[in-house]
Amino acid sequence: MIPLNQHPSGRHFLQIPGPSPVPDRILRAMSLPTIDHRGPEFAALGLEVIAGLQQVFKTRHPVAIYPASGTGAWEAALVNTLSPGDLVLMFETGHFASLWQKLAARLGLQTEFIAWQGADEHLPNAPGWRRGVQADLIEARLRKDTERRIKAVCVVHNETSTGVTSDIAAVRKAIDAAGHPALLLVDSISGLASADYRHDEWGVDVTISGSQKGLMLPPGISFNALSPRALEAMKTAALPRSFWAWDEIVEMNKSGYWPYTPNTNLLYGLGESLDMLLGEGLDQVFARHQRWAAGVRAAVNAWGLPIQCADPAVYSPVLTGVITPVGVDADAVRRLIHTRFDLSLGTGLGKLKGRMFRMGHLGDSNDLTLIAMVAGVEMGLKLAGVALAGSGVQATMNHFANSPAPDAVSPLPVEGVAPTASQGQIRGGHLTTA
Amino acid sequence: MIPLNQHPSGRHFLQIPGPSPVPDRILRAMSLPTIDHRGPEFAALGLEVIAGLQQVFKTRHPVAIYPASGTGAWEAALVNTLSPGDLVLMFETGHFASLWQKLAARLGLQTEFIAWQGADEHLPNAPGWRRGVQADLIEARLRKDTERRIKAVCVVHNETSTGVTSDIAAVRKAIDAAGHPALLLVDSISGLASADYRHDEWGVDVTISGSQKGLMLPPGISFNALSPRALEAMKTAALPRSFWAWDEIVEMNKSGYWPYTPNTNLLYGLGESLDMLLGEGLDQVFARHQRWAAGVRAAVNAWGLPIQCADPAVYSPVLTGVITPVGVDADAVRRLIHTRFDLSLGTGLGKLKGRMFRMGHLGDSNDLTLIAMVAGVEMGLKLAGVALAGSGVQATMNHFANSPAPDAVSPLPVEGVAPTASQGQIRGGHLTTA
Amino acid sequence: MIPLNQHPSGRHFLQIPGPSPVPDRILRAMSLPTIDHRGPEFAALGLEVIAGLQQVFKTRHPVAIYPASGTGAWEAALVNTLSPGDLVLMFETGHFASLWQKLAARLGLQTEFIAWQGADEHLPNAPGWRRGVQADLIEARLRKDTERRIKAVCVVHNETSTGVTSDIAAVRKAIDAAGHPALLLVDSISGLASADYRHDEWGVDVTISGSQKGLMLPPGISFNALSPRALEAMKTAALPRSFWAWDEIVEMNKSGYWPYTPNTNLLYGLGESLDMLLGEGLDQVFARHQRWAAGVRAAVNAWGLPIQCADPAVYSPVLTGVITPVGVDADAVRRLIHTRFDLSLGTGLGKLKGRMFRMGHLGDSNDLTLIAMVAGVEMGLKLAGVALAGSGVQATMNHFANSPAPDAVSPLPVEGVAPTASQGQIRGGHLTTA
Amino acid sequence: MIPLNQHPSGRHFLQIPGPSPVPDRILRAMSLPTIDHRGPEFAALGLEVIAGLQQVFKTRHPVAIYPASGTGAWEAALVNTLSPGDLVLMFETGHFASLWQKLAARLGLQTEFIAWQGADEHLPNAPGWRRGVQADLIEARLRKDTERRIKAVCVVHNETSTGVTSDIAAVRKAIDAAGHPALLLVDSISGLASADYRHDEWGVDVTISGSQKGLMLPPGISFNALSPRALEAMKTAALPRSFWAWDEIVEMNKSGYWPYTPNTNLLYGLGESLDMLLGEGLDQVFARHQRWAAGVRAAVNAWGLPIQCADPAVYSPVLTGVITPVGVDADAVRRLIHTRFDLSLGTGLGKLKGRMFRMGHLGDSNDLTLIAMVAGVEMGLKLAGVALAGSGVQATMNHFANSPAPDAVSPLPVEGVAPTASQGQIRGGHLTTA
Repeated sequence: MIPLNQHPSGRHFLQIPGPSPVPDRILRAMSLPTIDHRGPEFAALGLEVIAGLQQVFKTRHPVAIYPASGTGAWEAALVNTLSPGDLVLMFETGHFASLWQKLAARLGLQTEFIAWQGADEHLPNAPGWRRGVQADLIEARLRKDTERRIKAVCVVHNETSTGVTSDIAAVRKAIDAAGHPALLLVDSISGLASADYRHDEWGVDVTISGSQKGLMLPPGISFNALSPRALEAMKTAALPRSFWAWDEIVEMNKSGYWPYTPNTNLLYGLGESLDMLLGEGLDQVFARHQRWAAGVRAAVNAWGLPIQCADPAVYSPVLTGVITPVGVDADAVRRLIHTRFDLSLGTGLGKLKGRMFRMGHLGDSNDLTLIAMVAGVEMGLKLAGVALAGSGVQATMNHFANSPAPDAVSPLPVEGVAPTASQGQIRGGHLTTA
Repeated sequence: MIPLNQHPSGRHFLQIPGPSPVPDRILRAMSLPTIDHRGPEFAALGLEVIAGLQQVFKTRHPVAIYPASGTGAWEAALVNTLSPGDLVLMFETGHFASLWQKLAARLGLQTEFIAWQGADEHLPNAPGWRRGVQADLIEARLRKDTERRIKAVCVVHNETSTGVTSDIAAVRKAIDAAGHPALLLVDSISGLASADYRHDEWGVDVTISGSQKGLMLPPGISFNALSPRALEAMKTAALPRSFWAWDEIVEMNKSGYWPYTPNTNLLYGLGESLDMLLGEGLDQVFARHQRWAAGVRAAVNAWGLPIQCADPAVYSPVLTGVITPVGVDADAVRRLIHTRFDLSLGTGLGKLKGRMFRMGHLGDSNDLTLIAMVAGVEMGLKLAGVALAGSGVQATMNHFANSPAPDAVSPLPVEGVAPTASQGQIRGGHLTTA
Repeated sequence: MIPLNQHPSGRHFLQIPGPSPVPDRILRAMSLPTIDHRGPEFAALGLEVIAGLQQVFKTRHPVAIYPASGTGAWEAALVNTLSPGDLVLMFETGHFASLWQKLAARLGLQTEFIAWQGADEHLPNAPGWRRGVQADLIEARLRKDTERRIKAVCVVHNETSTGVTSDIAAVRKAIDAAGHPALLLVDSISGLASADYRHDEWGVDVTISGSQKGLMLPPGISFNALSPRALEAMKTAALPRSFWAWDEIVEMNKSGYWPYTPNTNLLYGLGESLDMLLGEGLDQVFARHQRWAAGVRAAVNAWGLPIQCADPAVYSPVLTGVITPVGVDADAVRRLIHTRFDLSLGTGLGKLKGRMFRMGHLGDSNDLTLIAMVAGVEMGLKLAGVALAGSGVQATMNHFANSPAPDAVSPLPVEGVAPTASQGQIRGGHLTTA
Repeated sequence: MIPLNQHPSGRHFLQIPGPSPVPDRILRAMSLPTIDHRGPEFAALGLEVIAGLQQVFKTRHPVAIYPASGTGAWEAALVNTLSPGDLVLMFETGHFASLWQKLAARLGLQTEFIAWQGADEHLPNAPGWRRGVQADLIEARLRKDTERRIKAVCVVHNETSTGVTSDIAAVRKAIDAAGHPALLLVDSISGLASADYRHDEWGVDVTISGSQKGLMLPPGISFNALSPRALEAMKTAALPRSFWAWDEIVEMNKSGYWPYTPNTNLLYGLGESLDMLLGEGLDQVFARHQRWAAGVRAAVNAWGLPIQCADPAVYSPVLTGVITPVGVDADAVRRLIHTRFDLSLGTGLGKLKGRMFRMGHLGDSNDLTLIAMVAGVEMGLKLAGVALAGSGVQATMNHFANSPAPDAVSPLPVEGVAPTASQGQIRGGHLTTA
């Protein structure tokens, strides 16, 4: 097999904002032999993972699982609910919102792509890429749409290209305030299972998500969580569709099967992922990410570099973007860091190319891994000649040392004495003592 | 994790015609940590697997790899080459040809679905499902299409629902003989890497395939092998497409990357699969399957049951369908066999429901595994009260014992002496001796 | 990595009487990252596997786990209980009993090696190797030992070289009947977790076992189950020992640790193995092996070849030895079978070299796997020119078809309906339905 | 399965001086199915790993591989070369030297245990545990042994309890200078494959080593590299032995087999380990460890804490011991670090209990992993109230940033262009580009 790491020794630090590091338990589960996707064992698996996903999306309605990566789930949400030439209102929060807009246009939809129009000192060409969705702009636009031409509002929950987590409940409120019947379609590919998300409570009609972020799986499966209104819209939506069509999937899912061959081994991994996430508790998972994000931002502040997200109210718990000084090619820094320190960071995408990089802090991680990431970045910036105001590593260490993780295990009394279940949160179940 | 086998002990016999058993080497490769799909290591992997796939498809042209299952690749072939309302000529060889037709119709294409019209004693309602593509019928239909309304001819190479492997070169000859410009689109999802296939030589414009058959991978990635004419057709094809669009994939593939997140861990498996197949040699692989198929058919003949494929010229090397006597519910037999003997067989699909079952003999298998399959079926048939003319197991054993596999290792001289590379074909490379 | 199978395709049939096939669950567990053997997580693991082993040995007393293979555990049992020059009474049941005798002699013990002295038509040079331990001979010898020079009686429970499972309770009774204080040391390396075994109830002082048989693990760890009398004997035993010494192991095991580095990853596998065995239930496990053994013996009888074990009362549920006709080199047959059919059988050991081969039917197996084994043997015998009286494969199939496994899952009512836990024994836990 | 990490998320940092982190490649190799240890495939594996080990030990003579952990290999070296009551001269470098001495004594040998007798400010009760073997003391003692009662000199190459790597060539010179015939037995359990070692060139008679350190395997196999003199000594050595006896092992190893069941799956891992180490080159491996060790010591110096090894000439490249201030319980600090930061460190052993801890920097590691370790230690020391002179993390970062690893990959020119083999050292072989 071709080597997967050019470095002669040690474990790669995969700190891009997805794919996130896949836990060993999940990799092992995925490597179990493939079974018959029409057999009785598969049905039990299918029913279990769908039920678990509903808990993660916080929905009582169907969740379609596609044997395809996340971009496909974007397409699925549109072709199941819309007709050729339909107008969709999309909000430009960054590169992925832009890609989704481009995809919608390719599919023959009419798209209106609005953005925050303020000024920005550091990224004058992309001011809106430093902020979240502005619900008031959406409300204003919908109020003007007296003919109800707008069929759907499309927003990105956690914009992976910038590190901004928008307020989805506010978008729903804006639509309702405008009394507009548009569907609300939300991309939470990189938000789900890391940042708080509530499909039903927030009134989302379709939530798109993927496997390789908070669910800690390799890429390859993706999701559409549905609402009754979305299922209703499907009946008249006229965009051609077959692979993505919800009708057969939802029907066959009732018995735990799929209309065509599912991605069996990734579903094994999904089963394991759901065991881990629901075992830990979603609130714990969200708190864990918030604490990490604060620790990583402490480093950026100490360096004196601007955080890509300019609005602290919508800092992402999943990733943090860092704007490099003018004249510093952020990608050259990233490459140097990869070469010297075996650390992968996210690149600046689209309008941000070369102007920033992204540090992922999601999924199966911990304090020391994130400190190592910050150290790698700090060394790389210095080697690239970037003047730093202070030590980011020290700032992150101070943050983590002074804020014990709520889920850390309690100190064990004395070596040689087996721990008991009461001594702390145990990963993946309860420790059994003889 | 949910148990994947209800039986308390032993290894499941997965003898459906795909997913086929995944070799341990591939399962291990797939379980390596996910890497950055934008990093330098990934590019090397991407270029390697594409180059290897070209050898398997026998093409010098691009092969698009989708992070999606095979049904998606069907859709991809159509939306990249055709426009709404285009007429496609499809040939009904069985259930999968029918599903493809249904998919084409859902996408807004006009389909003409032709079939062999002879009589069949055993399956009067599905005579065409016992034979291959009739190239003369295609030629006759194309000759009548003087207005050139037919834009594509769609055929299935190896019909997984019946066990018939059609002559694709003959279809190309028929199109040429008619002097018709229609594209030739071929589904070789279950044929590729088990049955002889030659994309360029046979003049195929798009070959659709998938991972979970001859390539011995779990489901989850699928392929479109292209021709220059297919790429040309893409430029004017007007069906909406984005996820499936070839243009960006082909462009980015040149550097080993994909426009969106690929299915990284299945690509690891694909790399390993290509090492195994190309290491063994495709001709060896095809001969191995032909020999197995003959051995399994010997059993069916001994039982005195009709083989689903009525034309020996197009027996599939991948699977063998068996028609059960009238009054015997083939699915009840299958369930009994699964329960008692931990063996999965393929069900009768569509028009064949309850009337037949399918035995897979593809991919990572060997003589004893197939004998075990035949034994399980024989015991199941008897327990279900089916009268058998003779012992299928004995027939298969006789066949295998009397026809040494061309690739079997040579007898090793004396235990205790390490084998040398000259003593036979070694799996996955050469044995190294100290 | 060097290829581990010379055959180009398919899964090897490992039908030697150990190492037995390792279940996928165990292989995956073993591949989890190594942890600190002095840390708190390890202690929990250590306590759990020791407690589980006690259930398997059916003992309330300590079980020492060695990071060494089974031969080491033989040595351990002797050096912990005996002194240089001590006399031990050993019973010759076959090759492994002989190897243990040789080992005892090398350690400086005086051994008296007794055997059954009858005549045997098929194996005149090894009549005792076709029968079990004769408790009456032991009793007679002990009665004569009025000076109590014999310090221990050493017997093999399941003689892996012959396929004979001796009656250990009878040996204990013989010792008691003689009123002799000798310790009873029993090798159940290949019997434990496949054949019924009761350390405490049968009054065994040291039971030796290993990982690679009924426990379904790779080789590499081995066991000494102790009795209070054995621990008492340790205090005066004068053979030099350190690595094997029980004292420190038993002491440190109380807190879940070991005095030196344990075989961490095999202990992961042991944890999984114990989950599987105790989850299925030991009585189920024993019944499963008895049924298999009967099915395999049916084949040998049909062939008209003598079974190595001449006494039906002590047929082994773990393996069956087959004597080849005079003039047929059993090893040549085995090699032919390995080359042609990718099937490993056990060789004839010691006095049996070339005269017999052994078929293993233990651990993680099932009906079809054993039928495949029988088929491979039958084809091999025929190819080697051995005249067979009838079809062994048919006999085994008849046996298995007519005797449903008590633990087989119930037939599932209708495909598409998920099974419920009440429908049968589920592997490794209960099926969860949504 | 019992959870192996009490922390809810992220990868454990295993920074004890062995077991070292096992690379993913090795864990996957170890999880392949167990094969017949008497079959032809096994012989090829056996011959390959023995030949590879000879390269690592730098010897042309036999290397015995035991299916047992390292403590067993200590015992093996003694029982194969010595007789009851023989006098051995052992040098007290730390806890492991002391354990070996205790083991020798338990086996019935007479041991003379000498140590450096200077004064030490920080560890007055264990001055010799801060220095290496003093060859002059050995020479002096041997010169006095005019009756040649001393049969062997036993020293530890890399003392894992202290972080001191002794000069073995100097010990050989001392023995030769004294003209003494004693054998030289060396424990390089934690030195081999991390620190320079030359069995033949340094005139060592038996080198003992194990799997779980520089070879990057889990514990469970261990080694005796032999010399012709050691094999000669075996002939008259009278300590009882059987499991450990070299004679049968060396004889059977010639054909790639073992006299009893080897630890098959760990041998798979060993094959992979040897591919990695010899592929990288031993000199590269040693340089990598030296660079890491210097970086970690920079942190200890910055903290102002004493390094356990007081003699810079014998600093270990494998681990660094840190003496905590009087009044600080080093074990309490370690436990706090494990609980809060999921980082395992080595404890203070024997005379050092509670007075120091050990940081491992060996095997499959890299700069960021070691920086993370240093950060975890620094936070833990501060949380425990230890006053530090400066930032160790900053010191380590400075060291690593300013000393590029000689084996780091070259910067890759532009993303999107696949790397070529000439662009740097590639892990585990050459990158293949299409």
